[in-house]
Amino acid sequence: MIIDCHGHYTTAPKPLQEFRDKQIAGLKDPSYVPSKGTINITDDQIRESLESAQLKFQRERGSDVTIFSPRASVMGHHIGNETTSRHWTEHCNDLIFRVCSLYPENFVPVCQLPQSPGVAPTNSMAELQRCVNELGFIGCNLNPDPSGGNWTAPPLTDKYWYPFYEKMIELDVPAMIHVSATCNPNFHTTGSHYINADTTAFMQFITSDLFKDFPTIRFIIPHGGGAAPYHWGRYRGLAQDLKRPPLDEMMRNNVFFDTCVYHQAGIDLLFKVVPLDNILFGSEMVGAVRGIDPTTGHYYDDTKRYVDKIPLSDSDKRKIYEDNARKVYPRINKRLPRKA
Amino acid sequence: MIIDCHGHYTTAPKPLQEFRDKQIAGLKDPSYVPSKGTINITDDQIRESLESAQLKFQRERGSDVTIFSPRASVMGHHIGNETTSRHWTEHCNDLIFRVCSLYPENFVPVCQLPQSPGVAPTNSMAELQRCVNELGFIGCNLNPDPSGGNWTAPPLTDKYWYPFYEKMIELDVPAMIHVSATCNPNFHTTGSHYINADTTAFMQFITSDLFKDFPTIRFIIPHGGGAAPYHWGRYRGLAQDLKRPPLDEMMRNNVFFDTCVYHQAGIDLLFKVVPLDNILFGSEMVGAVRGIDPTTGHYYDDTKRYVDKIPLSDSDKRKIYEDNARKVYPRINKRLPRKA
Repeated sequence: MIIDCHGHYTTAPKPLQEFRDKQIAGLKDPSYVPSKGTINITDDQIRESLESAQLKFQRERGSDVTIFSPRASVMGHHIGNETTSRHWTEHCNDLIFRVCSLYPENFVPVCQLPQSPGVAPTNSMAELQRCVNELGFIGCNLNPDPSGGNWTAPPLTDKYWYPFYEKMIELDVPAMIHVSATCNPNFHTTGSHYINADTTAFMQFITSDLFKDFPTIRFIIPHGGGAAPYHWGRYRGLAQDLKRPPLDEMMRNNVFFDTCVYHQAGIDLLFKVVPLDNILFGSEMVGAVRGIDPTTGHYYDDTKRYVDKIPLSDSDKRKIYEDNARKVYPRINKRLPRKA
Repeated sequence: MIIDCHGHYTTAPKPLQEFRDKQIAGLKDPSYVPSKGTINITDDQIRESLESAQLKFQRERGSDVTIFSPRASVMGHHIGNETTSRHWTEHCNDLIFRVCSLYPENFVPVCQLPQSPGVAPTNSMAELQRCVNELGFIGCNLNPDPSGGNWTAPPLTDKYWYPFYEKMIELDVPAMIHVSATCNPNFHTTGSHYINADTTAFMQFITSDLFKDFPTIRFIIPHGGGAAPYHWGRYRGLAQDLKRPPLDEMMRNNVFFDTCVYHQAGIDLLFKVVPLDNILFGSEMVGAVRGIDPTTGHYYDDTKRYVDKIPLSDSDKRKIYEDNARKVYPRINKRLPRKA
């Protein structure tokens, strides 16, 4: 089985965005009373939005199932306040639940959190619990910078986040560290803000004892671990100078990279330096880069092609495509039992 | 000749830091009257600080000359105000001038700028001019985030920076994009802030017409271009989706990466994807990573070892080690004529 650990519902039917547009417009209207309201999307609209995109690509590229969450760039935690974020998040998660109920073989749900700048992560625990316990979600996306590029929250290694981590452990779900759009003009959402956040989180992990405090917590750093593999020597050397554990020891049971790196040389490097046990297949399709690479004739984000070119034993290949994902997201095992 | 384009005076004699400590302490003292004052450092102290460090490593590793600037992490543009920054910067640059006068064969000077949060870059023009015209400096380090990790300045592609760029062009000097220490606890200065800034600048360049406005301006993005080479497919794809010029066309005469990547696999990737004409040899020794890699027995930042392993023709090797640096920093040619 080939599990793609990183997919967002980037092609959601229009009424979702229409709700969001109205919600955002309301923030400027003094007479607007925030309410969750309803969004009318039919099952057929959901089917249509996926059949021509994610499902088509799953079939064409040969993956079986995608760990699927709301579109990351429009989580927009910096927009409005906690209530804005809660209403929007619940709608987005409810829609993911419907996707995964319609296509239980193809999509497994991961939730967005109702984060908001200055609001403690404890306030996201109820939604995580609802999604996991009531809707069968297997993980969450955690935004280390709900301010959208101003980086006003404490580092992920700060005790500020600890109650939320305790809830993750109680529910046995991992978090993918994933920022949303940026409102800071210095950054480009998918071009620099995403990658910077990955790099930032990795360095935070290097310098802290978080995994002593939470030996079983699991984080996925997406986009191939940001800049970390390219600068592996730098990070190995910094860890050494700072008298911190070696990188593979630090990562072992706690930190995982996906394969969302959109060219062969990058994937080659990833597999050369990062332990195989810490790499999960992912593509983030249909996502940041939608074009076809003229030098290969294939989609940039068809990452399976690059991974397939890495010489791996059958059991190592199975780790990357299936076993590591089952280890990091154990709740997937109930939804999709291992095939004989 | 082997030119290392990226070295900072990280081993400056103690009186420099003592001045800085007093200056910073003064910021909290209402009775303190800021003044530039003097710093007493003897020529022997300068010699001693270099003979056991940068000069020793030049000899041992086989490089000839280092393009040398004040220590980046203590530029500290976010500390105090414009006057604080001006006094500190002048001292740092004066000291670099002395280094390069004592060792004209080994060091060529690049200046720090008296940037300060919220202060227009026009206010840095006088110091750039003083350094270039009076002291023979050949370039500058430009901080895209004088706030130290809060990213409050406009992007490098904003017209805010244009008068400074005009001055750079008038003086025919390039800028290395280099942040300083961060005061934002999310970031680690050399582990994430530096690399994030590199990645951020690269994406800003992709999305703007800066090089149409300034066809002859030259920027060095240090640390191997941040995350860019590892995510080359992502950046190629984003440029394509955004209908921007291809990366090598965008970079051609304007954007250059150094080789401050501290492991073989990273350097291999850099040379695989980035045009040779846009790579300058650099090590940033004695810098962010000071240890010896136990897997190789050599210093992590001995980047010449990695570059020497790349199969290159003699003329390509000369580009990386000398010609590209002479092209990007043309004022070096007067100080160090090409050897016959």
